[in-house]
Amino acid sequence: MMNRRMILLRVGQMLVLESIMLILPLIISIIYGEWGSMTAFSETIGITAALGFLTVILVKPHSKVIFAREGFAIVASSWVFLSLFGALPFFLSGEIPNYVNAVFETVSGFTTTGATILTDVEKMSHGMLFWRSFTHWIGGMGVLVLIMAIVPTDSGRSMHIMRAEMAGPVIGKLVPKIKDTAKILYIIYLVLTVLEFGFLLVGGMPVFDSAVHALGTAGTGGFGIKADSLGSYSPYLQWVIIVFMYIFSLNFNLYFLLIMKKFSPVVKNTELWIYTAMVLVSTAVIAVSIYPTYNDLHDSIRHAMFQVLTISSTSGYSTVDFNTWPMLAKAVLFILMFVGGCAGSTAGGLKMARVMLLSKTVKRDIGQLLHPRSVSAVKIDGKTVDNKTIQGVSAYFALYMFLIMCTFLLISFEPFDLETNITAAVSCVNNVGPGFSVVGPMGSYADYSDFSTIVLTLAMLFGRLEIYPLLLALSPRSWFTSSNKSKFKRA
Amino acid sequence: MMNRRMILLRVGQMLVLESIMLILPLIISIIYGEWGSMTAFSETIGITAALGFLTVILVKPHSKVIFAREGFAIVASSWVFLSLFGALPFFLSGEIPNYVNAVFETVSGFTTTGATILTDVEKMSHGMLFWRSFTHWIGGMGVLVLIMAIVPTDSGRSMHIMRAEMAGPVIGKLVPKIKDTAKILYIIYLVLTVLEFGFLLVGGMPVFDSAVHALGTAGTGGFGIKADSLGSYSPYLQWVIIVFMYIFSLNFNLYFLLIMKKFSPVVKNTELWIYTAMVLVSTAVIAVSIYPTYNDLHDSIRHAMFQVLTISSTSGYSTVDFNTWPMLAKAVLFILMFVGGCAGSTAGGLKMARVMLLSKTVKRDIGQLLHPRSVSAVKIDGKTVDNKTIQGVSAYFALYMFLIMCTFLLISFEPFDLETNITAAVSCVNNVGPGFSVVGPMGSYADYSDFSTIVLTLAMLFGRLEIYPLLLALSPRSWFTSSNKSKFKRA
Repeated sequence: MMNRRMILLRVGQMLVLESIMLILPLIISIIYGEWGSMTAFSETIGITAALGFLTVILVKPHSKVIFAREGFAIVASSWVFLSLFGALPFFLSGEIPNYVNAVFETVSGFTTTGATILTDVEKMSHGMLFWRSFTHWIGGMGVLVLIMAIVPTDSGRSMHIMRAEMAGPVIGKLVPKIKDTAKILYIIYLVLTVLEFGFLLVGGMPVFDSAVHALGTAGTGGFGIKADSLGSYSPYLQWVIIVFMYIFSLNFNLYFLLIMKKFSPVVKNTELWIYTAMVLVSTAVIAVSIYPTYNDLHDSIRHAMFQVLTISSTSGYSTVDFNTWPMLAKAVLFILMFVGGCAGSTAGGLKMARVMLLSKTVKRDIGQLLHPRSVSAVKIDGKTVDNKTIQGVSAYFALYMFLIMCTFLLISFEPFDLETNITAAVSCVNNVGPGFSVVGPMGSYADYSDFSTIVLTLAMLFGRLEIYPLLLALSPRSWFTSSNKSKFKRA
Repeated sequence: MMNRRMILLRVGQMLVLESIMLILPLIISIIYGEWGSMTAFSETIGITAALGFLTVILVKPHSKVIFAREGFAIVASSWVFLSLFGALPFFLSGEIPNYVNAVFETVSGFTTTGATILTDVEKMSHGMLFWRSFTHWIGGMGVLVLIMAIVPTDSGRSMHIMRAEMAGPVIGKLVPKIKDTAKILYIIYLVLTVLEFGFLLVGGMPVFDSAVHALGTAGTGGFGIKADSLGSYSPYLQWVIIVFMYIFSLNFNLYFLLIMKKFSPVVKNTELWIYTAMVLVSTAVIAVSIYPTYNDLHDSIRHAMFQVLTISSTSGYSTVDFNTWPMLAKAVLFILMFVGGCAGSTAGGLKMARVMLLSKTVKRDIGQLLHPRSVSAVKIDGKTVDNKTIQGVSAYFALYMFLIMCTFLLISFEPFDLETNITAAVSCVNNVGPGFSVVGPMGSYADYSDFSTIVLTLAMLFGRLEIYPLLLALSPRSWFTSSNKSKFKRA
């Protein structure tokens, strides 16, 4: 049997942590004297903390040992409850009166998507705006990874949880202890966020604005607080966001290596350079294509690079309405939505590492068609990738395309055009945020029916957790069949 | 070294065959007294026959043995030359004055796509209309397979050619001799075509119309001869086309089995039943969704089923402008474009067999995440599929998605909307024909620039030959490195 008590315990811990995290937006509400949100946050903290503590106190697991499937189940359940409770402040304050929409907005926050159902973001209270952006920050690195980092944890096999919650084909330990790895990652994350906050302040951005944008960039989320997202801020501030969107879409292991003064593996990291090349080439193509619109070289390059990085890092901010751009620019952005950022970053999408692995596999297969007896291995960074990983990534790609197709099909009951629906599906699954047409950067997801909103909510969760955890959690087989010592290996 | 003389010889034979086949439309031109097309066909026959015979006579291969890569090269070169010469009648007669457009139309014919650059098809001469539809018939089963069937062939390893030219993940021999297999397939193909021709005649369709539509359905091509495709024909005639689109999108091996009175493997053929179920479910969904438009149950079902089969068989005829249908109906059609028909049929697309294999692989991988030590094989029709085929299909899927993305990106220089460009790319790669919006069933590809027309032409060829032959033919490595005995195994 699955270790259900252990799952319940972890979910309980997560609720306690959420109630603690909710204190921050509560403080913001108090500072700004927003009574409505103050009440909503207080009520939510009460409910969440009570339920969380009750669970933690009452549930006594027989064994603390968990296996792959418990890891999946913990991650899936935690994220679902995290979102259901995280949506309460929006709902209770009446700022998002429809609970389905409130959950959408919260899931969009935690999954670092940044898609919104708000039609007038500037009407929201500071407390809610802060909570929205804070969910990005929490979801970016993962809430369970945070628990691992701060709770004096039991042995357990927390690696399963970490692998299931963090994105990318391969998550390695930085240091022998998983707890220390989680700590190091979160410290890097925190330091970089504070750094961005500082750079924004220096550029004259108000404190509140700097805070929410730093949190949103770090998680590669993308919730803005102005109707035109970042359009009205100065070019300097936009460049700061550009640089940090890039930084947060790279593999965090690289920063650890830099701290350890190991420069050679960083220089030799193929994913880093291919990703950087993709960003630069896309920027160049788009800059040329939009030059006639802006008639200014610097503006064209800045807008091009901002939009390229907002999509490839899957943040979703914008400085202009790229929905009105020429087709070529939109086509490039559309394709970047699929690729996403690097593995081991807070970015979404397929991840550059997977795209590279797929390309190399295809290349090897072509070679073998010509020379079937030759044995050629797929190598990344000089290391041979084992066949199981290769097969896993290929299968993941197929599953991922199925997910996009299903999402697209299920939201097609809506009267919107194909461009809206297809980019909505692609954008949500890849945790980007905006699409084109109705769901463009200056539009919103507000007009979708409750049914489609739920479908897109699930699509964001599936995308963020890379499908398997939720799929397994939804399958009765994994809850009711007998367990064996299943080791977890993520593709 | 690659056996280049053998490749040249095969291309020569193909040209001779093409000049012979051109006699048929020439006769049609004579019957209808169309002098312009008569001249154009005569000139083309002259040029093609002269070049073909010259090649066959002059080229003396040292060895007749060919391997996988020669198979690929023969198929790739043959199809390119077939199209370049096949386009001459359109160009020389001035009916398609732009040679790039003429090649597009011809490739669209041979690849059984059915996408057209004609804005007024009813202005075309009978000779040209017949040639257009005849190219569908030739391309459907494959011109090299035809050569195998009729030329008193040398031993050689023609299996390589057959596998490279015929679509689908697995092409088996029906009978021990490859030549006999080719013959049997062509006889089935011919008999079914004649049968459809008869059913259309019986329904009162004019002889000429019946002939071109029978040829077009057999190849799952889709070139119509009326501005509204099949919209103005009677419901009976539309039902005949529906039935035969279904028949031609099934695996031809099944018909051979039926002839041999082996019913059990037919009944147990999973692909057949899943494909049929997909057609029925899609029809039901669409019929419900379009019922308010037609307010008649039979009309809704007929139009729904016609359009479902025209897309899933990748024919591309139409009875109504499905571009104006509700989003849900369009979404279903869009997804059907990717799936296509069954393996071993004349249909294009990914093929149901591949979709099934991908689903089962994904399912197995999910099972292994939970129980890594369990060994579970992927089975189709009760037979275990080997890992190499599984890996091959996964890699093919990735390559196929890359192809669609590249095509989409390269045609994005056009000022069309995303819906037009994305469906144009998907439709051409899958050899469907029409897309939505500008390239919808009542629209055309006429407004694309020469550059995009060439891109889409290549996309159709890549799609029809399932990528590898052309990719290998384009790689210098395959022409200039030393050969070893490479056996061919298609994924």
